[in-house]
Amino acid sequence: MTTNAFTKQYLMTAGPTPVPPQVLAKMAEPVLYHRAPAGVELYARVLERLPQVFRTQNDVLTFAASGSGAMDSAVANLVRPGTKALACAAGKFGERWIELCEAYGADLVKYEPGWGERLDPQEIGRLLDENAGVEVVFATLSETSTGIVHDVEAIAAVVREKGALLAVDAVSGLGAAKLEQDAWGVDVVVAGSQKALMIPPGLAFASVSQRALDAAAAKPEGRYYFDWVTTAKQQRKDPPNSPFTPPVTLLAALDVALGMIEDEGIEQVWERHALLARATRAGAAALGLELYGDPDERSNVVTAIALPDSIDGKQVPKILRDSYGITANGGQSQLSGKILRIAHCGYFGGFDILTSLSGLEMTLAQLGHPVEQGAGVGAAQKVFLEAGVPAAASAA
Amino acid sequence: MTTNAFTKQYLMTAGPTPVPPQVLAKMAEPVLYHRAPAGVELYARVLERLPQVFRTQNDVLTFAASGSGAMDSAVANLVRPGTKALACAAGKFGERWIELCEAYGADLVKYEPGWGERLDPQEIGRLLDENAGVEVVFATLSETSTGIVHDVEAIAAVVREKGALLAVDAVSGLGAAKLEQDAWGVDVVVAGSQKALMIPPGLAFASVSQRALDAAAAKPEGRYYFDWVTTAKQQRKDPPNSPFTPPVTLLAALDVALGMIEDEGIEQVWERHALLARATRAGAAALGLELYGDPDERSNVVTAIALPDSIDGKQVPKILRDSYGITANGGQSQLSGKILRIAHCGYFGGFDILTSLSGLEMTLAQLGHPVEQGAGVGAAQKVFLEAGVPAAASAA
Repeated sequence: MTTNAFTKQYLMTAGPTPVPPQVLAKMAEPVLYHRAPAGVELYARVLERLPQVFRTQNDVLTFAASGSGAMDSAVANLVRPGTKALACAAGKFGERWIELCEAYGADLVKYEPGWGERLDPQEIGRLLDENAGVEVVFATLSETSTGIVHDVEAIAAVVREKGALLAVDAVSGLGAAKLEQDAWGVDVVVAGSQKALMIPPGLAFASVSQRALDAAAAKPEGRYYFDWVTTAKQQRKDPPNSPFTPPVTLLAALDVALGMIEDEGIEQVWERHALLARATRAGAAALGLELYGDPDERSNVVTAIALPDSIDGKQVPKILRDSYGITANGGQSQLSGKILRIAHCGYFGGFDILTSLSGLEMTLAQLGHPVEQGAGVGAAQKVFLEAGVPAAASAA
Repeated sequence: MTTNAFTKQYLMTAGPTPVPPQVLAKMAEPVLYHRAPAGVELYARVLERLPQVFRTQNDVLTFAASGSGAMDSAVANLVRPGTKALACAAGKFGERWIELCEAYGADLVKYEPGWGERLDPQEIGRLLDENAGVEVVFATLSETSTGIVHDVEAIAAVVREKGALLAVDAVSGLGAAKLEQDAWGVDVVVAGSQKALMIPPGLAFASVSQRALDAAAAKPEGRYYFDWVTTAKQQRKDPPNSPFTPPVTLLAALDVALGMIEDEGIEQVWERHALLARATRAGAAALGLELYGDPDERSNVVTAIALPDSIDGKQVPKILRDSYGITANGGQSQLSGKILRIAHCGYFGGFDILTSLSGLEMTLAQLGHPVEQGAGVGAAQKVFLEAGVPAAASAA
């Protein structure tokens, strides 16, 4: 048996993401009864704090569910059989909107520019002109499967101009990529707990404008658990009431995580993700690796790196996991074996990026693809140094 | 306010060392009553498991104390006023033996070759020849203040030949640097819990040979809490009995940690520390930095790196902590500002070394000492690749 210096485990995926120790410690506390005063206060406090992350005045409807549950709620509340909808998909999670719309019987227009592409707001406008009567458009903020962050601000402007509702899947993007729900005029933003909100999976959110709530109220049937109107009514009580037993441990965790986001400041949180993404892109470039698709400065959630054709790309996440203890994402579906995704989403710091790059450099060497050991790490370090963060901190 | 990508905290000191998550989880369990069956079983199991780490057939006497408490026990049990003793000191922790011997009134011979030097077994033999009647020699396995691991095997051979007892401070070395207590003939090995045993501070150990126990029994007074004879008698009962209330939470933690050491295998544990040290030395060399003192392949607990004269060396641990969240050791006493110590002691893996080197590279750049970013990291990665560990793991 050979000595193994790499037995520690590093969760480096874009979801679930690493959970901060103070959040884990909170979850080890005794479970609260949700109807007891402490449980009621916790629920109220979390509901009070959530809108800051969405940058909204909406009530943020909170469900015990995966992020996909919140996506389901959006379609269940806005689409009845025959409702005209436009679903945009440029990757696996965009395609989930299509599957949901089809499941609920929408009269569906699909906009599928291809994986790795960026949704084009003008094309969405054209499709809305061409297909009169579309009531709701479904789109994605950060497409985790490709690393692309779409221009939701521009999409929202077009959709609003055409008079439709816009529902955005921000499951992986919320708290990582800039999103201004109210300022941009996004009617519905759905999200999950296990990404940049830094807690385990199990809570899902739908931040729903009054306009979207009214649309849901006008289509009252065909759903129960995910009904927005009931949920909003219960959450608006004083004190707020959860229609079903809420996952109190996750609420307690979220309370701590939201406090961390408040302390850092949401704009600084976005900026940190941008810096980590910039360092990751510099690291990949220094290793002579191309990025997948068409990422830009918005692509701050996960960086998709195209793997060299000369190696068996499926081996990269496998070696990272089996040899280095790093759980990272390869490509999904049509990108399987073609990309490695380095996450920077939630509780990630500079050394997480450097660790991912170190692991990648050693893995590529093992696969016979020559890279200069330390080159990617050094390039990323230079980005951090140039950002001036540590200098500023030490000067304080 | 500048964005800060370095707010995560990294405990990179040589003690307390990082505690594995499974050990932390165990410590969050309810406290056991030490006289209840589960408490008694836990105590018995830990006492049964401890000798493997010391490589001994001795009972390992266990105290609720810091490591220095176990050192105190060695002097309190073997030295009465006027007892002739030889204390060896080539750093801060060697000097603690001198302080203890003086406190207990020993007729003391001191061997102090200077900080950073390696204890010379021949010189110890010469001093024993020159000072007839020395009953006990005190020495150090790993001198944490300088990074030097002494050649205890050779020292033990000389001391045994001259008929004296040898007591070794292995507080920081046990479980990191090779130590074969019985095979080498070391009478007393003292250790602490917060180093390579991977649990928090609070437990101290003295593995005492029958010869040393007999010597203690012949000097029965002047101690109580740390009395070896009483402790050994209580621990040898069936089931073993702790003379005083033991820190049950730390015992539960130690039980998990000892299981981890068993699973890895103590020789593999030593080998891992050797590999991490080799990678650290290669990283320092690639950055053009000298090692402090005279380290060799045994110096596997902590690597002391001499800092360039051109910079203010006290800034290095300060910037690492304040800017990068890395708590690392600078120099102590006469080495303050002159060295940085990178620990690899206990729950450390390859990425911990790479993180320390990354932090050092960025810190040196901030201090105006030009190093090629990534060069130290890359050199360390090459050591890991050449060790072939990951390749072997991925082939499995």
